[in-house]
Amino acid sequence: MNRLLKILVYQEREAAQFAEALQHLDDIVIAVASTPAQALMELPDTEIIFGWKFPTHLLSRPEAASVRWMQVMGAGVDDLMADHTVPSHIIITRVVGQFGRPIAEYVFAYILYLAKCIEPMRASQQKQMWSPLIPTELAGKKIGVAGLGSIGLEIVRKARAFDMVVHGLSLSGQQAHAVDRHFTSAEWTQFVQNLDYVVITLPATSQTYHIVGRQVFEQMKAGTVFINVGRGQIVAEADLTDALMAGRLGAAVLDVFEHEPLPANSPLWALPNVYVTPHISGPSMAADVSRFFLDNLRLYRQSDALYGRVDRTRGY
Amino acid sequence: MNRLLKILVYQEREAAQFAEALQHLDDIVIAVASTPAQALMELPDTEIIFGWKFPTHLLSRPEAASVRWMQVMGAGVDDLMADHTVPSHIIITRVVGQFGRPIAEYVFAYILYLAKCIEPMRASQQKQMWSPLIPTELAGKKIGVAGLGSIGLEIVRKARAFDMVVHGLSLSGQQAHAVDRHFTSAEWTQFVQNLDYVVITLPATSQTYHIVGRQVFEQMKAGTVFINVGRGQIVAEADLTDALMAGRLGAAVLDVFEHEPLPANSPLWALPNVYVTPHISGPSMAADVSRFFLDNLRLYRQSDALYGRVDRTRGY
Repeated sequence: MNRLLKILVYQEREAAQFAEALQHLDDIVIAVASTPAQALMELPDTEIIFGWKFPTHLLSRPEAASVRWMQVMGAGVDDLMADHTVPSHIIITRVVGQFGRPIAEYVFAYILYLAKCIEPMRASQQKQMWSPLIPTELAGKKIGVAGLGSIGLEIVRKARAFDMVVHGLSLSGQQAHAVDRHFTSAEWTQFVQNLDYVVITLPATSQTYHIVGRQVFEQMKAGTVFINVGRGQIVAEADLTDALMAGRLGAAVLDVFEHEPLPANSPLWALPNVYVTPHISGPSMAADVSRFFLDNLRLYRQSDALYGRVDRTRGY
Repeated sequence: MNRLLKILVYQEREAAQFAEALQHLDDIVIAVASTPAQALMELPDTEIIFGWKFPTHLLSRPEAASVRWMQVMGAGVDDLMADHTVPSHIIITRVVGQFGRPIAEYVFAYILYLAKCIEPMRASQQKQMWSPLIPTELAGKKIGVAGLGSIGLEIVRKARAFDMVVHGLSLSGQQAHAVDRHFTSAEWTQFVQNLDYVVITLPATSQTYHIVGRQVFEQMKAGTVFINVGRGQIVAEADLTDALMAGRLGAAVLDVFEHEPLPANSPLWALPNVYVTPHISGPSMAADVSRFFLDNLRLYRQSDALYGRVDRTRGY
């Protein structure tokens, strides 16, 4: 007979919706919390946390003594990695394999938006001007993808369908065969040379912090389109701003920032050729994330290895 | 020994540029014309015309008696098909296989532009608003491609990379295996039902004239995005306008029109959710088109079958 498991569902706005997906389970006690105070009250006897932006400092408190596993509702675990008080016996898993498609769609939406001159075309239409301007073709252009996990590989797959030349940079090198040319994390400056598009899909870890800075931007050719769908901490935002102000980049498409929401005083909001979106490229759809958790929960109860288990040394 | 061939290069604005690509040929006389008057003067002894928007009525005049072959500088030959005075002994070839990539890029640029809410995202950015709105995912959406020639098949290929469900309609049915479900030209109303995107890549012929009209628009589900990169004559523009005004379509992306340039009094210019572009989705790049012609010229001199030969009964 299974033990009666207590699962705490934590999410600021949609906790009830995520809990709903678990209602059909047997031998389970479900608690729901949307604030740190509620979470603290529900922590005693909780064995599993299914949550997003969970107040990590609570995990070292005596109330959290029974917590064994935290399933994060997204792909990023930088908050948990940054808090060194999180007890090491708590297993952390993140959602993997679900964000490739929407994020790759986002990346190609903006690449094509720029290449096909949609903004000037819209302006011509508003003036009722029939003024043929010849758009750029993606075929034959060079794209570099930094990070070849499930998200990076989905971008590579779509780049192939657009007949682009594909370069890649990754930490492990395991997926080097998927790209036309592979670079290691020691080769950033070589990697970005002569690329038409640079796409960052890396996780935020102590190794990737500010790894894209002035020296890397200086190696990009004029007109390079820089896209960040990874984490804001990877890019030295002040150096990016300098490169943009100097007119060295063609455009920057940014879905992630060092501080989110992007502060009102950031020059990125209003710089020309900068496209700011509010961290929406890889939305966590409740249904998909819940399905991922349910699969993992089955494995957990069978004491099998979990999907998306975070390696704390690696940081993701 | 080869005969001395006279080739007339005709193009309104870039004739010299196209002629340039032929300069290296031996045993050739090259003439260049940019106006009907110039063309008439150069027609005597011309055996081959390499041209775009050639004044078709000149072809039945005695000055054109030696013309044997016309290589059109694009994919469309509707002007030549519409003029029944064009002597039937003149072989007509059109450029095939070169427009698939740029046109499919155009199609996905607009599909993604709409799905990823780029316009509202830009508006939010201008107001410095961090307002997450969840974009649509293409994966799993249904696209219908009317016309499965080289252009339609390239759209199908890219739709696969976006994990879409792909339906197709074609006259010949030869490429039916390339799509998840195939419809014949007798099944237009069934074809458009329940599609998220309808893309027209058909040629303008007497069979396709106004084939997409009120009855077809009435079968589309609310919110369908309608894209025409074929020819304007295929669509009954007044019926399209009615469907848009009634709010039955989600959007219309139009690169071709019944009359081009689109007349100033057309309501399409200013209707909401209508995207007007000046027939630029498949640009004829001089270098590519010239290479196509040079390949065909070699075949012509060897009396071999030419690429892209137009079947006048079929109309393309």
